[in-house]
Amino acid sequence: MFSEKNVKAGVTFPKGFKAAGVKAGIKKSGNLDVAVIYTEKEAAIAGTFTQNAVAAAPVFVSRDVVKTGTAHAIAANAGCANACTGEQGMKDALAMQKIAAEALGCAANDVVVASTGVIGVNLPMDKMEKGLKQAVAELDENGSEKAGNAIITTDTYSKACATTVTIGGKEVRFGAIAKGSGMIQPNMATMLCFITTDAAIDSKLLQQALSEIVEVSFNMISIDGDMSTNDMCIVLANGEAGNAKITAVGDDYETFKNALQSICQGLAKRIAADGEGATKFLTVNVKGTKSFADAKTIAMSVAKSPLVKTAFFGEDPNWGRVICAVGYAGVPMDPQKTVVKFGGIPVYANGVGAAFDEEALRTVMSAHDIVIDIDMGDGEEEATVWTCDFSYEYVKINGEYHT
Amino acid sequence: MFSEKNVKAGVTFPKGFKAAGVKAGIKKSGNLDVAVIYTEKEAAIAGTFTQNAVAAAPVFVSRDVVKTGTAHAIAANAGCANACTGEQGMKDALAMQKIAAEALGCAANDVVVASTGVIGVNLPMDKMEKGLKQAVAELDENGSEKAGNAIITTDTYSKACATTVTIGGKEVRFGAIAKGSGMIQPNMATMLCFITTDAAIDSKLLQQALSEIVEVSFNMISIDGDMSTNDMCIVLANGEAGNAKITAVGDDYETFKNALQSICQGLAKRIAADGEGATKFLTVNVKGTKSFADAKTIAMSVAKSPLVKTAFFGEDPNWGRVICAVGYAGVPMDPQKTVVKFGGIPVYANGVGAAFDEEALRTVMSAHDIVIDIDMGDGEEEATVWTCDFSYEYVKINGEYHT
Repeated sequence: MFSEKNVKAGVTFPKGFKAAGVKAGIKKSGNLDVAVIYTEKEAAIAGTFTQNAVAAAPVFVSRDVVKTGTAHAIAANAGCANACTGEQGMKDALAMQKIAAEALGCAANDVVVASTGVIGVNLPMDKMEKGLKQAVAELDENGSEKAGNAIITTDTYSKACATTVTIGGKEVRFGAIAKGSGMIQPNMATMLCFITTDAAIDSKLLQQALSEIVEVSFNMISIDGDMSTNDMCIVLANGEAGNAKITAVGDDYETFKNALQSICQGLAKRIAADGEGATKFLTVNVKGTKSFADAKTIAMSVAKSPLVKTAFFGEDPNWGRVICAVGYAGVPMDPQKTVVKFGGIPVYANGVGAAFDEEALRTVMSAHDIVIDIDMGDGEEEATVWTCDFSYEYVKINGEYHT
Repeated sequence: MFSEKNVKAGVTFPKGFKAAGVKAGIKKSGNLDVAVIYTEKEAAIAGTFTQNAVAAAPVFVSRDVVKTGTAHAIAANAGCANACTGEQGMKDALAMQKIAAEALGCAANDVVVASTGVIGVNLPMDKMEKGLKQAVAELDENGSEKAGNAIITTDTYSKACATTVTIGGKEVRFGAIAKGSGMIQPNMATMLCFITTDAAIDSKLLQQALSEIVEVSFNMISIDGDMSTNDMCIVLANGEAGNAKITAVGDDYETFKNALQSICQGLAKRIAADGEGATKFLTVNVKGTKSFADAKTIAMSVAKSPLVKTAFFGEDPNWGRVICAVGYAGVPMDPQKTVVKFGGIPVYANGVGAAFDEEALRTVMSAHDIVIDIDMGDGEEEATVWTCDFSYEYVKINGEYHT
């Protein structure tokens, strides 16, 4: 399903999509920093955006594009977030949209704009204009990798993803690129995710699917509890696969939604695993609650606890910190009924620490991927949150003076 | 008001109180680890406790003592939290209470018990018994400093405090010892605070005063967002000052409450300043909100943000992270109306970064104590939260394997 070749193809894996990434000089490092993704055939569009009250200018502009239900392109940059930039920021985001649209030969409101990077700095519009024009000129069916690298900031690598499903006898393709790292939190933290598909689907159904999927993917990861001003997840569906257009909930819709969910959860996990300074990837499963919301609240309380995260960094099977974070989550609980397992090994049950094989637990704690299972013993609902540990490197990355 | 001599006297500064701290061998370091505070004359008692659903055994035992309205003593240890210890833990906490009471010659339910340290380990009761008996034998009018040192864990120093006020023509004294450091969060995180006073006051009024004061002192600090299983704040008022007993709200009550509040806020600030690995003491003032709760929510969102805390560690005047944390606090806001100042210097206003004197701001950021003022411009209410920065040392302290 996730072949190396398809993953590399990323957003250009689905039919009819091209992409490019260029060096416009916006990142201080001189790396790739402006990306364009384009479909000549008009695509249905859906999007979800940051819930931060201090949203960046491109968020306002792109929300309006999503409202139209269709689009042709995404223009994005890294290195400057165009957030907290006031009126000038809005002018710049609209200019970014217009420059890309003119170069592509489409309407301005057919272009989503996205920015990530330093807050409070104006976009260098001369560099942006040059970069966008160059990116449009370089649009290519093999351009996804460059586009992916152009949207990353402190990520250690660009995330890409691809999959194929059959809908109504037609092969339907999905591809995606994403950036994450610091400041990742529920509710779409500093994350950009651009998903393409050649499925034919009604834009309202596309939005419905995306909104539901985001709740169990990108909103279930936490790096450091911060939520950014710039996050967005955009899906473009251009219909090139030739399937009968999905216009109602049914088998085709479910197949489509499952594929989109696998893309989003796969990327969410990889964003969590690549959190700033991360050395461990932690999966926090909470079950036995009365509601999904309760399970999520408990899992997030554990996933966000700096004491839990530093313990896993130190490979310390400190279940006391985990049960403590469960206890202050705010969900009524019975400590006697609660069971905590690390890597399948019970470490807390019946209100006390469990006897465990120290050697086996040491093996669990020394692995890169660690699963924490918490059974509250009080219902049938469950939730899974993905996060990473808290390391010296996190403090280093974020404690360095980089204005 | 806070003379060196009185502060050193701590919980033994008020008339009629004795204290002791001894080495019982519960801390691995071999340092002082069992403390007793005692008043021969019966004292009115008030207490507030952790809201963690996984409360430690001593919390259950001491809640019952507070319910009786009177007490003679506090018996405490560091090195073992007696949390997540099941039935054995309850037996041990009750035995700890009984041993101290017998040695002191008072009833078991006249003794508050408190523990702090490692979770999930049973109290070594032989060491505890020997330590308690020794502490009672060593009770002394100069014993506060030793008692203070016996309750600290990763604190870099013991916190003590003292003050004097005049009530009804009589000198009334207050003294206190406290421990804090990691895991400090609103709602009484791993914090033990023992306050003594020779005021005569009705226990219900004492509880009313304490409960209100905790909301604007210990519940307004955050180190890492974690909340412990063991926190408690206890006040003993033995009436030795000879003031006419305070039995109703009025001038005497207000004078008493102001003094108690100055004690609690002073200790809360020092606990925040001595958070694990802290290199900076941060005061987050939020004003211009519709309610105290809104102001507190915003201030806590800023104080708990790892990105904000690492920025201050790095002396980086990164107002973008502050306004971002304000934005995701969940309180409706207008970014245009919000003003952020560091050390009195505006850094964000009118939706954008403010022009500032870089040299002056560098001086602000390089100081140990930094004040962050946030004016939401949307009301008359305000709140202040105290916290510290996030350093390499925090990760080191908490990432070391110490089971």
